Amino acid sequence: MTTTLAPAAPSADDVLGTSAARTRSAVLERQILEDPGRFRILTGDRPTGRLHLGHYFGTLHNRVRLQDLGVELFVIVADYQVLTDRDVADRLTEHVEELVLDHLAIGVDPERSTVFTHSAVPALNQLLLPFLSLVSVAELNRNPTVKDEIAHSRQSAVSGLMFTYPVHQAADILFCKANLVPVGQDQLPHLEVTRTVARRFNDRYGSGTAVFPEPDALLSEAPLLLGTDGTKMSKSRGNSIALAAGADETARLIKGAKTDSERHIAYDPAGRPEVSSLLLLAALCQGRTPEEVADDIGSAGAAALKRTVTESVNEYLAPIRSRRAEYARDRAYVLRILREGNERARAVADATLAEVRAAMNSRY
Amino acid sequence: MTTTLAPAAPSADDVLGTSAARTRSAVLERQILEDPGRFRILTGDRPTGRLHLGHYFGTLHNRVRLQDLGVELFVIVADYQVLTDRDVADRLTEHVEELVLDHLAIGVDPERSTVFTHSAVPALNQLLLPFLSLVSVAELNRNPTVKDEIAHSRQSAVSGLMFTYPVHQAADILFCKANLVPVGQDQLPHLEVTRTVARRFNDRYGSGTAVFPEPDALLSEAPLLLGTDGTKMSKSRGNSIALAAGADETARLIKGAKTDSERHIAYDPAGRPEVSSLLLLAALCQGRTPEEVADDIGSAGAAALKRTVTESVNEYLAPIRSRRAEYARDRAYVLRILREGNERARAVADATLAEVRAAMNSRY
Repeated sequence: MTTTLAPAAPSADDVLGTSAARTRSAVLERQILEDPGRFRILTGDRPTGRLHLGHYFGTLHNRVRLQDLGVELFVIVADYQVLTDRDVADRLTEHVEELVLDHLAIGVDPERSTVFTHSAVPALNQLLLPFLSLVSVAELNRNPTVKDEIAHSRQSAVSGLMFTYPVHQAADILFCKANLVPVGQDQLPHLEVTRTVARRFNDRYGSGTAVFPEPDALLSEAPLLLGTDGTKMSKSRGNSIALAAGADETARLIKGAKTDSERHIAYDPAGRPEVSSLLLLAALCQGRTPEEVADDIGSAGAAALKRTVTESVNEYLAPIRSRRAEYARDRAYVLRILREGNERARAVADATLAEVRAAMNSRY
Repeated sequence: MTTTLAPAAPSADDVLGTSAARTRSAVLERQILEDPGRFRILTGDRPTGRLHLGHYFGTLHNRVRLQDLGVELFVIVADYQVLTDRDVADRLTEHVEELVLDHLAIGVDPERSTVFTHSAVPALNQLLLPFLSLVSVAELNRNPTVKDEIAHSRQSAVSGLMFTYPVHQAADILFCKANLVPVGQDQLPHLEVTRTVARRFNDRYGSGTAVFPEPDALLSEAPLLLGTDGTKMSKSRGNSIALAAGADETARLIKGAKTDSERHIAYDPAGRPEVSSLLLLAALCQGRTPEEVADDIGSAGAAALKRTVTESVNEYLAPIRSRRAEYARDRAYVLRILREGNERARAVADATLAEVRAAMNSRY
């Protein structure tokens, strides 16, 4: 759920939690290789438009890797998390389709993985009610994103939806009994709420058996790719390269990217962030280290660097873009994939809700 | 929804609002007589056990009156509002059945009215998500019950479920597009949240047409019946007379009721609350005024008063109790009525959710 909430500044607690999560993630990665069938992952995105290279190397690539290792994947399109952004909400159907298209293009296989929209699964959403009874207002106030929002603007700017967000996330993850959630470091506190909800539900209603797993965080090291203007890559800043962008558009965007005046190209993320980010991008596409890419270019300057980056990106994305274009010509197919995903998610959610209602003595 | 939340002390605002609501309610009562088919009512109770005379003369009687006038009635059994009371939650199925039984006994007609459980209608519960986006945390903090709870205990005692309660109530009322909600004075602020949610949803997503009505409060004057110990009648205080109680049990309970030592019986609610409450109870059962009942008894003392009350209550409840006993012998029938009510509520909720998703551009 890396992109579902704005990242919060890590606190001292997070940093401590991160070290443990990193160790645990290494163990989990070994277990995935040994027995991928034990794991079910919930991950997803807010439908705000076409996904870009930052998303791809940050999370999407990892999803396909895990799917191809044999882990079962549920990808939620979090269409209830974009309601407050009016421009996005008014073009919701389009954005959702783009998101499904992007996932098909990168290799998410609808035969093995389930892509679905949050709003299409009522039984998932119903879980919010029992889960809300297990979390106090004081705990919800501790959510770093809410704290941040209240500190920077005011309480009236925080909607009930944002305030209860970590509990929705618990419902998103637990409805399919996912036991693994790929997250960035800043998402660890949110996952902790999900773990707490699962534990409290089991204690309160489980009668000795666990209805829900306590899902593990699979911490992924997202490479820091900057946008073409040297700031964080983000669609809303217009500094990103979309997966769907054409080869010429990509060339144009990279040609306009900010660099520096030194002719010698070297990988130095702290001292030369823009050049280093371009090197990293080429390296990710080539499957090499940024230092190796820099050595190839030597003192040929920024123009040579940009040519290398453009070629690498266009070559790497070519098969993804070609698949995407193919799917884009058949919108009916894309919608059918989503509908099938929704059906599958509904069946899973209905079964979980039936179990929850039985555990709560409310099966009448 | 009179019994769904603990009553809050009325504030100056409430008192001002109450006067307007009273005037409006008188207009509505006339409109109901003229054209009852225009109205759909949502009302309900928390399933905490058998209903008693306080519930009956406070709200239940009014429900049947409105149904018999031709208003369509939806009665929600608010089974998600009792989760925090462990003793109640552990006997939920039993409590829900008792509630359905009580409604059948008092004359709620399952052919015309819909009795259903909150937890059985996922599409209703899903409405919580878009509705939460329309209300701020600051507004939720203004809920008198939450304020009260935070003032008297602490924030960690307020669950996310209690905090978001007025928004659940909006979903409960708006899922069936109820345009009328019978309430006591203390419930007016909660209904205001429902009206706000309906208005904001229509403004934001309605494209010029109203998806939801802004439901009116039908203020009902609930007579103040005290329990047998002279305090507020409440099942948990063991001072109430259940609809389901037998005639002998009723006689015993009334015999033990608190009175005073004056032999002359007179209606004086401020000065002689216990005696006056008993007079009121007899009067409600006889369809007369408490003053008339007092005149009949004159100076015959508390024992004579209690005999009159016992006879009146037992005579009044006889047909209700006989119907209740009949239904109680056929639990399968009671469950069937509930299941049919749930089916009907689900169909209505599914249709409303489809409309909501269309309005929000999330129909894929």
